[in-house]
Amino acid sequence: MYKINENYLKLPGSYLFSNIAKKVAAYTAANPDKSIIRLGIGDVTQPLAPAIIEALHSAVDEMAHAETFHGYAPDLGYEFLRSAMAENDYQALGCDISADEIFISDGAKCDSGNIQEIFGPDSKIAVCDPVYPVYVDTNVMAGRTGTYNPDTETWSDVIYMPCTEANNFAPELPKERPDIIYLCFPNNPTGAAVTTDELQKWVDYANKEGSVIIYDAAYEAYITEENIPHTIFQCEGARTCAIELRSFSKKAGFTGVRLGATVIPKDLKCGEVTLHSLWARRHGTKYNGAPYIVQKAGAAVYSEAGKVQIAEQIAYYQKNARTIFEGLKSAGYSVSGAVNSPYIWLKTPDKMTSWEFFDFLLEKANVVGTPGSGFGPSGEGYFRLTAFGTYENTIAALERIKNI
Amino acid sequence: MYKINENYLKLPGSYLFSNIAKKVAAYTAANPDKSIIRLGIGDVTQPLAPAIIEALHSAVDEMAHAETFHGYAPDLGYEFLRSAMAENDYQALGCDISADEIFISDGAKCDSGNIQEIFGPDSKIAVCDPVYPVYVDTNVMAGRTGTYNPDTETWSDVIYMPCTEANNFAPELPKERPDIIYLCFPNNPTGAAVTTDELQKWVDYANKEGSVIIYDAAYEAYITEENIPHTIFQCEGARTCAIELRSFSKKAGFTGVRLGATVIPKDLKCGEVTLHSLWARRHGTKYNGAPYIVQKAGAAVYSEAGKVQIAEQIAYYQKNARTIFEGLKSAGYSVSGAVNSPYIWLKTPDKMTSWEFFDFLLEKANVVGTPGSGFGPSGEGYFRLTAFGTYENTIAALERIKNI
Repeated sequence: MYKINENYLKLPGSYLFSNIAKKVAAYTAANPDKSIIRLGIGDVTQPLAPAIIEALHSAVDEMAHAETFHGYAPDLGYEFLRSAMAENDYQALGCDISADEIFISDGAKCDSGNIQEIFGPDSKIAVCDPVYPVYVDTNVMAGRTGTYNPDTETWSDVIYMPCTEANNFAPELPKERPDIIYLCFPNNPTGAAVTTDELQKWVDYANKEGSVIIYDAAYEAYITEENIPHTIFQCEGARTCAIELRSFSKKAGFTGVRLGATVIPKDLKCGEVTLHSLWARRHGTKYNGAPYIVQKAGAAVYSEAGKVQIAEQIAYYQKNARTIFEGLKSAGYSVSGAVNSPYIWLKTPDKMTSWEFFDFLLEKANVVGTPGSGFGPSGEGYFRLTAFGTYENTIAALERIKNI
Repeated sequence: MYKINENYLKLPGSYLFSNIAKKVAAYTAANPDKSIIRLGIGDVTQPLAPAIIEALHSAVDEMAHAETFHGYAPDLGYEFLRSAMAENDYQALGCDISADEIFISDGAKCDSGNIQEIFGPDSKIAVCDPVYPVYVDTNVMAGRTGTYNPDTETWSDVIYMPCTEANNFAPELPKERPDIIYLCFPNNPTGAAVTTDELQKWVDYANKEGSVIIYDAAYEAYITEENIPHTIFQCEGARTCAIELRSFSKKAGFTGVRLGATVIPKDLKCGEVTLHSLWARRHGTKYNGAPYIVQKAGAAVYSEAGKVQIAEQIAYYQKNARTIFEGLKSAGYSVSGAVNSPYIWLKTPDKMTSWEFFDFLLEKANVVGTPGSGFGPSGEGYFRLTAFGTYENTIAALERIKNI
């Protein structure tokens, strides 16, 4: 009899957001008269900006004529999009990243899940705790994480870097040397950001210790403070130790459009082998490119009109974030995040567990959030709300929470 | 120092089609005045059908308004598309496949590359020889294939099933029991098809031996003969031994649009574990859905107008296939395929190797094809041409080949 990948069976329960969806569906079925406000999963609600819609229509028209039809995309993605990203996301900030160091993909979830494949099977990973579940789960599937302890909800071979009130949600350098360090700033789920000086310490550490940093910059568009880096390549030496993941989901509302990128500098080498060549091989063998029309939509994000419209959209969500943050604070909650992030991280009241507070909020206020413990053991006792609702719903949710 | 996945380094050279692209680019640079006709890579050239264009525009308009905007897609894909596939591709043929056994993806290349992940690391794979390179290469990356012998161009732990003139390009049941059997009919690259009775033998074998069949049905739309199955689920017992991969690339010209699906019957179990649950977990953890607009385009393929237009498009390519087949035959070439496939498989003349004939054809006729040896050792001495050019180019290429 053929055998399955037994590592899959080690995963405790299903993916966090699938669990939440099931719980909400059950509640809705039992209470069809209640109107639920969803501030749980980080899904956007604003329509695509006009410049993007226009680019999509125009690209669809191109696909309707043989002369302008586009079949398979180039392996790394279309040059027009890679160049726009290199110029706007990197060179404009003084970062030395070229178009051919950017790999276009269908989103940061796929990239953050797949990137572990190019590393050795015994690699030791370090993650912030709490953390986006994909980093750990995909390493569990690859058999890298050892055994699971259901009491502590931790894996024996993962280095956890707690992010709590005590360290202002910024992880400390690990005591044990990891091979791969996953960092995400502005952070999901805590909303915390680190300064360029603080991030520089991680780059220096990785270069010194021979670690590689997987830097998830999915939320960089929400940064409002000046000393917070938009990319790890604003740090000196990052070209020899860091891979960066970029997403259009939160930057331009592309959660249902699907576009992302992985940036691998050609200076990033393990011995003589560039990680760029390994990822290129993976892209060429297991992937067939993001749709042409979607890549054209991505390029429109960097057009003059696109930039203005995207900035307005982000400002809309930033206002929501501030509204939730201030509202909860004035209601007596202990809150963080929000300033450079679409996420608001709050301490559950009355020592409720995260899931207790999830049920409490769902039942008493009909508001859906995300239990902090779903992101790791140090998330227990915390809860994540997102700024991606409509302003009206955000205000309404806040009123309901205040009136519990 | 962190370690890389050493298996990647075992891969000999880069992906076949990247190699061809480089060779053609070099020739074009050296001979800018020559007009090249590409019948190599299986990329379509006809524009998207009007019903699909209309569906795309309409879906783009939905994304422009908050009321009809779509964010993250459901884990398995939108129900409207899964139902359309279940009805049209399966139930209409009397096959018992339901919508919730269909996982929508961004294409069969990704699915055929990723599917091996849910199986044990020591699984033994069997492949047709010649074969689409992705099946073997992705298992090399996962460390399943043993050592490479550069002389025979084979891997020690892969079971090769030769498909040659001797067996009419239909593989025989393997002597050694494999865990995973990759089958693709109509075949890429040979264009050969098997009858339902012949495929039934494979299903019976897999059920008896405890093997699982990965059935790549990417070219089913090109079947013209009645006794050729469009899906493996037309065979009795396939629900307990087979996974099927579907593609919209060749069926509806979606090579640049990106849409596919994996079908895993819930009866397919290894002990108590359904492979459906494993793939669902992979989808939920490492993938974030095909774009909403692309899934709407996929549904349009099954609309009344869509079906008519797609049939015309396929007939166009089928005419090309017949034209190449008959033309080469009358020019004295030994050819097969074409009848149920967009691929024409020819024996190289004068005992040339596949790559020698590639260079010969490129230089003498400025026609690009694909060397058979790129698909496996038994492909040596063969060459693949595709029907996906325009009719005019197909005729022109044929004239050039005849006049060499």
